[in-house]
Amino acid sequence: MSQALTHRSVGKANNERLEFLGDSVLSLVISTELYQRYPELTEGELSRLRSSLVRGKTLAAVARHYQLGQYIKLGQGEIKSGGVNKSSVLADAVEAIFGAVLLDQGYAFAYTFIAQTMAPWLIKVDPISIQKDAKSQLQEVLQKHGMPLPVYQTIKEVEVKGEIEFHVSCEAEEKQLKTTAKASSRKKAEQASAQKMLDKLDV
Amino acid sequence: MSQALTHRSVGKANNERLEFLGDSVLSLVISTELYQRYPELTEGELSRLRSSLVRGKTLAAVARHYQLGQYIKLGQGEIKSGGVNKSSVLADAVEAIFGAVLLDQGYAFAYTFIAQTMAPWLIKVDPISIQKDAKSQLQEVLQKHGMPLPVYQTIKEVEVKGEIEFHVSCEAEEKQLKTTAKASSRKKAEQASAQKMLDKLDV
Repeated sequence: MSQALTHRSVGKANNERLEFLGDSVLSLVISTELYQRYPELTEGELSRLRSSLVRGKTLAAVARHYQLGQYIKLGQGEIKSGGVNKSSVLADAVEAIFGAVLLDQGYAFAYTFIAQTMAPWLIKVDPISIQKDAKSQLQEVLQKHGMPLPVYQTIKEVEVKGEIEFHVSCEAEEKQLKTTAKASSRKKAEQASAQKMLDKLDV
Repeated sequence: MSQALTHRSVGKANNERLEFLGDSVLSLVISTELYQRYPELTEGELSRLRSSLVRGKTLAAVARHYQLGQYIKLGQGEIKSGGVNKSSVLADAVEAIFGAVLLDQGYAFAYTFIAQTMAPWLIKVDPISIQKDAKSQLQEVLQKHGMPLPVYQTIKEVEVKGEIEFHVSCEAEEKQLKTTAKASSRKKAEQASAQKMLDKLDV
C-alpha cells in the first residue's frame, strides 16, 4: 500500500503501474453499480455517467474528501511546487490505492471498498441531466450564465476508406473557446464537439 | 445470454447495455493479465498493449475465430446490408457476451472465461515493439513499405486556462493521410499524432 502512495517524482518504485490497474477496476465497479441502479438508461447515457465519476476532477475531490494528500510521498521538486495539492497527483493516488486493494485483497473486497469510497459521488449522479444530449446541456449552461448560444460550423467533409467523416467546430464566443470533433454524421460530430466544450467549461 | 447476441437493429431488448459492462470487465481482465505478465513495463506501455487487445479490430478477430457471427440476431435491415460480417457488430457482440457472463456467473468465472477466450491474442502481444514510441514505430512502418518519412508540423499554440496547448499535424504524403493531435508539449502532441496515424494505417 505504501507504493500506491508514492508519486513518480520519488523514484522508480512508484504508483504508476498500480494506477493502470486501479483505473480499470474503478471503471468496472462504477459500470456495475450504474448498470444495476439505472436499468432504464442506454449505453451512451451510462457511459456519460461513468465518465463523470471516473474523471480526474471527481477523483481529486475524493482524495480531498478523505484527506489523502497528507499520506502521499512526493519527490523534493514536487513538494516545492505544491504537488500535494495538485488535482492530478491526488487523482492518480486514488486510482493507485484502488489498484493496490485489488492486488492485495482480490476483486470482491476491492468492489466493496471502491463502491463505499465512491458512494457519496454515486448518490449524487443525475441521470436526468445526463439523458439530455450534449448540445442541449451546453445551451442550458450558456443561457444560465447569460451567454450567447454556441455556434456550430462544418469545417470539412473528408472521405476516409469510402466513408464520409464530418469535421465540425463548436464555438462559445464569449469564453473564446473552440472545440472540434469528427464523426460519421454531422449530428454526431456536433454532439461530440458540444461534449468537448462542456468538458472544457468544466461545469 | 440470448440478449447478448441480439443486435440493436432487432429492437429494444438488445445487447448495448451488456456491451457497456463487457467493455469494462474485459479491460480489467486484460489489465490484470498484462500487469502480471510484464512487471518491467511502464504504465504507458501497459496502456498501449491493452489498447491493442481491446480495440474493435481485435475483438472482431476474436468473434471470427470463434465463428460467433452465426449466432448473432440482427434486424432485417442489418441482415440485408451484411451486418453479420461487420467488424463493429461482431466486436460489440463479444463485449456483450463478456458482460453477460459477468452478470450471470460473477467476476471469478468471468475472469477465467475472458482470459481463456483472449489467450491467443494475449500470447501474441509484443512488449518489445510497444516499448518503442509511436514516432519510431511509424517511421519503421513507412520505411518498411518504402514510403517517405512522415512530416510533423505545428499548426498552432493556444493558451487554455494559462497553459499552452500545442496543435500538431502528422502527414504521410504517399498515403494522403493526415492526423492532428494536441497536448501540453510539442513532443507529446507529435507522439499522439503519430499514434493516430498508426491507428489509421491499421498495421
